[in-house]
Amino acid sequence: MIVVMEPGASEAQIERVSEYLVKHGFKINLNRGDVLTVIAAIGDKRLINPHSISSLEGVHDVKLIQEPYKMASKNAKDKDTIIEFKNGVKIGGDAKPVLMVGPCSVEKDYEGLLKVAIAAKEMGCQFLRGGAFKPRTSPYDFQGLEEKGLQYLAKASKETGLLVVTEVMDTLDIPLISKYADILQVGARNMQNFKLLKALGKIKKPVMLKRGPAATIKEFLLAAEHIMYNGNQNVILCERGIKSIDSDFTRNTLDIAAIPIIRKYSHLPIVVDPSHGTGRRYLIEPMGKAALIAGAHGLMFEVHHDPDNASSDGAQSLSIEQFREVAKSFNKLIGRIDYDNRNSKN
Amino acid sequence: MIVVMEPGASEAQIERVSEYLVKHGFKINLNRGDVLTVIAAIGDKRLINPHSISSLEGVHDVKLIQEPYKMASKNAKDKDTIIEFKNGVKIGGDAKPVLMVGPCSVEKDYEGLLKVAIAAKEMGCQFLRGGAFKPRTSPYDFQGLEEKGLQYLAKASKETGLLVVTEVMDTLDIPLISKYADILQVGARNMQNFKLLKALGKIKKPVMLKRGPAATIKEFLLAAEHIMYNGNQNVILCERGIKSIDSDFTRNTLDIAAIPIIRKYSHLPIVVDPSHGTGRRYLIEPMGKAALIAGAHGLMFEVHHDPDNASSDGAQSLSIEQFREVAKSFNKLIGRIDYDNRNSKN
Amino acid sequence: MIVVMEPGASEAQIERVSEYLVKHGFKINLNRGDVLTVIAAIGDKRLINPHSISSLEGVHDVKLIQEPYKMASKNAKDKDTIIEFKNGVKIGGDAKPVLMVGPCSVEKDYEGLLKVAIAAKEMGCQFLRGGAFKPRTSPYDFQGLEEKGLQYLAKASKETGLLVVTEVMDTLDIPLISKYADILQVGARNMQNFKLLKALGKIKKPVMLKRGPAATIKEFLLAAEHIMYNGNQNVILCERGIKSIDSDFTRNTLDIAAIPIIRKYSHLPIVVDPSHGTGRRYLIEPMGKAALIAGAHGLMFEVHHDPDNASSDGAQSLSIEQFREVAKSFNKLIGRIDYDNRNSKN
Amino acid sequence: MIVVMEPGASEAQIERVSEYLVKHGFKINLNRGDVLTVIAAIGDKRLINPHSISSLEGVHDVKLIQEPYKMASKNAKDKDTIIEFKNGVKIGGDAKPVLMVGPCSVEKDYEGLLKVAIAAKEMGCQFLRGGAFKPRTSPYDFQGLEEKGLQYLAKASKETGLLVVTEVMDTLDIPLISKYADILQVGARNMQNFKLLKALGKIKKPVMLKRGPAATIKEFLLAAEHIMYNGNQNVILCERGIKSIDSDFTRNTLDIAAIPIIRKYSHLPIVVDPSHGTGRRYLIEPMGKAALIAGAHGLMFEVHHDPDNASSDGAQSLSIEQFREVAKSFNKLIGRIDYDNRNSKN
Repeated sequence: MIVVMEPGASEAQIERVSEYLVKHGFKINLNRGDVLTVIAAIGDKRLINPHSISSLEGVHDVKLIQEPYKMASKNAKDKDTIIEFKNGVKIGGDAKPVLMVGPCSVEKDYEGLLKVAIAAKEMGCQFLRGGAFKPRTSPYDFQGLEEKGLQYLAKASKETGLLVVTEVMDTLDIPLISKYADILQVGARNMQNFKLLKALGKIKKPVMLKRGPAATIKEFLLAAEHIMYNGNQNVILCERGIKSIDSDFTRNTLDIAAIPIIRKYSHLPIVVDPSHGTGRRYLIEPMGKAALIAGAHGLMFEVHHDPDNASSDGAQSLSIEQFREVAKSFNKLIGRIDYDNRNSKN
Repeated sequence: MIVVMEPGASEAQIERVSEYLVKHGFKINLNRGDVLTVIAAIGDKRLINPHSISSLEGVHDVKLIQEPYKMASKNAKDKDTIIEFKNGVKIGGDAKPVLMVGPCSVEKDYEGLLKVAIAAKEMGCQFLRGGAFKPRTSPYDFQGLEEKGLQYLAKASKETGLLVVTEVMDTLDIPLISKYADILQVGARNMQNFKLLKALGKIKKPVMLKRGPAATIKEFLLAAEHIMYNGNQNVILCERGIKSIDSDFTRNTLDIAAIPIIRKYSHLPIVVDPSHGTGRRYLIEPMGKAALIAGAHGLMFEVHHDPDNASSDGAQSLSIEQFREVAKSFNKLIGRIDYDNRNSKN
Repeated sequence: MIVVMEPGASEAQIERVSEYLVKHGFKINLNRGDVLTVIAAIGDKRLINPHSISSLEGVHDVKLIQEPYKMASKNAKDKDTIIEFKNGVKIGGDAKPVLMVGPCSVEKDYEGLLKVAIAAKEMGCQFLRGGAFKPRTSPYDFQGLEEKGLQYLAKASKETGLLVVTEVMDTLDIPLISKYADILQVGARNMQNFKLLKALGKIKKPVMLKRGPAATIKEFLLAAEHIMYNGNQNVILCERGIKSIDSDFTRNTLDIAAIPIIRKYSHLPIVVDPSHGTGRRYLIEPMGKAALIAGAHGLMFEVHHDPDNASSDGAQSLSIEQFREVAKSFNKLIGRIDYDNRNSKN
Repeated sequence: MIVVMEPGASEAQIERVSEYLVKHGFKINLNRGDVLTVIAAIGDKRLINPHSISSLEGVHDVKLIQEPYKMASKNAKDKDTIIEFKNGVKIGGDAKPVLMVGPCSVEKDYEGLLKVAIAAKEMGCQFLRGGAFKPRTSPYDFQGLEEKGLQYLAKASKETGLLVVTEVMDTLDIPLISKYADILQVGARNMQNFKLLKALGKIKKPVMLKRGPAATIKEFLLAAEHIMYNGNQNVILCERGIKSIDSDFTRNTLDIAAIPIIRKYSHLPIVVDPSHGTGRRYLIEPMGKAALIAGAHGLMFEVHHDPDNASSDGAQSLSIEQFREVAKSFNKLIGRIDYDNRNSKN
């Protein structure tokens, strides 16, 4: 931590800050300049609140020099986290990128869901996604099928062999959803629902944490830290776009740079959702490819057997026919990435 | 709803969209122009998803022309909502703006809290605020005293006559917190925790909903709508700043314009938090005054008996001494606003 | 400057960075911690580029600890800059806040402009504003009357005694505009047109610099620095709203906190434009009052004799009748602020 | 244009708005609903200002339904614009993506520039970039070599056969820069310097327009429209990142989705700058690849013969050695894209 004193800070103020830091276990080093004094405080003490220091008299600014997340950081763990599922599918590290597809919401028509699942299996996807509990900005929107939706997912999974990803919205629903899902997803709007994160830290199943609509990467990694700190190391991150100054053509600005950044600073896998990340069907293919080539460990996107009549987010869902084309294009690229990875190692 | 067709949309596409709208209960009106065709669809049907329409072939764009919130809208209710508490204090409409003060977190030192409460009472404040359950961006920060914190708040309330505002973070804690609090606060990070909003719709106690760090005013009112739609009309909104492109000098950008906007479009009371809204102690006074003169129904800000040793957010808390000065300045302004209101009515 | 080395930085890397800093005139201080090494580099050397340092091997991050602006900073000048005009009107410091009004663009109808100017004078305003050269986002919008517009402003100024504020868009137009204007305004979109800023540094007339639509306060002050560094100290800043995640109800988010921040960190006067800052007529009054009470040295807003037929920005202009009401309300508040200022000094 | 009337708008108000629209050449269509009345106004009249309409009494909102840009729009021109240079190099449409490299600023050391140019030629790049006139946020930063810089670029171009891209900052410099450059670049901070855009509309040389740091895609295309409307159709767009809520790890958020969006809605070529778009050297390769696969017509990025001593932006420049690796990776991808394009056409 670097404490920058005000230009006119008095000796007494400098001493008081120094003592305060020492009292809290820091090793300090004073740098007196012509214009201002800087106190460098070194230590691995993460429990002090920098805001308390910036409120001391004479302090101009406090700058952190260590990442506030620890377990999610690459410094904590040399090797990338690779999560392996019962059927051998892997996410993370150099494992082949995965594809997670399905409707935004699981709906009453099971046959429709099954059609999507069968096509997904045929096209080489590994996961079936679909919301049974739906967070909706408006109370007038469809709120989800709840347990029935979970049963449909499980049934389609049994028929196809796909793994299941579905969202958990409340602490109370964790046991129920854990029975059916292979990955429990935390939605973007719940990224900082700390009670939920803590509770998910107590289970063993992998958790996929979506980035909040206005979360910085630091806040995103800190949210993952809440889960890890409470005991569950199987966290998958999911970039899904952030709010920006432009929303004429897309719902969000998909932050592709987050992928190489997270791969540099964290060992956790990072998956990308080009459906929510753009809100436009025609952008799924180019943005999915951009994500893959930038290093994403997988893609999650929406496919619906009848998008025009989807109960949510039809505009960003692919029809099954469109999906086949897009999946073909993704598979080709994944094949090349895989080929290059293998070759670069020789 | 206005459906704008693509420039080259075919007759068949136009017909299909028209039929779709009629089937969903809309009265439609076709406008064929030289360049493009526009379908105006009128009706009070809020349950259709505009995204489903924008995914129909030939549709270029769908524009909503009605606010998606209904119960929170001024159109739904002519008169401003005024919430009255057991001791006669009122929030909303033309009631005199209220002041809500206290520490960010309730801490182990009860005497400190009491000192703040006594000063608050002396300076004419109506509410004591303080967090017993704390949402923290980092798992390494102080997480709150939980029920003991609630008991402290209740005790200080009993000794001073102040009403209590405190945060609820989880559905499970609602009954417990309801026993102690006069207002249940929903934190900014939970603004779209829809399970929590629904559950708060089932109780009778007033709920203060803080604006999410990146929520638009529309999303903010829709979040209120979730509570109201589920049965609780006693919602108080709280503006607390949004994330913006500048965070060098403040934690958030306090959106003062949200106050007159919400007062124009909604009947709900709107309170402002200049502590979180700026993150800087010296900005509480000027921004609090700006909020009051722009029409805020109250201010909530942080006061700590020993800010240098606060367990959270010391940098944005006032000491008791500073608080007295700031409260004096707020009271003077409130007195003038009150005087002008009374005079403008004659 | 604080240079934070990577956790695994080698001795050679640390030495190289240290040498580099010393070579550039810095006094350095090494802090070796268990986890990482930090080099504090102190000096008043503003000419080094921190990016050059962050590209040295082994460097993790570089943090500046001094404001990059110098002449605009309060550290450079104890007393607030107060700009005095030929007729004794002052802007800045504790001078009574000024009002600058007029149409967005000067139009062909001189009588209309004169009506506005006469009303402005009657209501105690000091400045007539109006664009003769107009920056327009679209080439299809009205582009301004150019010199004829300047002549109209000068004529209306002569008849009423108001001072003139008008925008300069190009280096070439400075001599012409200087003949007519008392303040040369730099539009928000030109805030970082450095050629223009430099050229304005060579003149003596006051320059009013509008904040860019996405400029941080630091960038805003640095833009002012370009003018001051080139010789012209008479700079007035103008906050006019920034782009944010919400544009449903306003064109921009008026950053009221920028006022007390700039008054704390700079000696330059700061004026606020609630017309462009909101884009809505009904917000001019509440936001103008919020700006004044937060410390603004003046307000600039749009008044048009016939807003429905204005050639630009009618929606954010007041009619003359509306203006009289709003000005009355501003004058009342200015009177109270003035009264409080005088009393607080005794 | 869609004019939405207030819920309680009177007949007289509706009539007045209708008349106003008809007077301005619109064909109108009234839609009276239970709750509100909507007037659809169709016509190709771009000269009316929607703000004038929204200021009429009884108007709630005005929604545009046509893109405000015309010449930049795909509707105006079926075929993609392909710009061809004297040596046969092409930018746009299905032409092979180009690479533009060089230092941020041209510096005194000509030999350094030449080394970069030779390596660029060897690696198959088509353009040499470098700033002779530099826009700098701070007046204390290096401001450029001016004409001498242009001469250096021309000399290096002559020795290698590379084409030259360099920035123009002021109307006055256009003739001089036109003598030396093959593409005149407009910097991000000048994207809305309309005087400059107009003047560039009068020349024939291609102009590369960089997206403003907070410009929406609509504003970006409108800025291009200013150049085209004034006569120059040879406009190349350049995405270089926008400001967002996160700047911890990057200088800007590179908006990769802008590429497929612009390719869908405009016929103009779109190039991407991953150096400024991220501000981090290690992100140039992944983000450059993401841009290419998403459809970029070229990449522009910074290469310096000695980044540690660059006079600007060293942290985002590649050394020549690093450049060779990155260029190899780009060329491999460009080869595959080219291969796929050719094959998909059969």
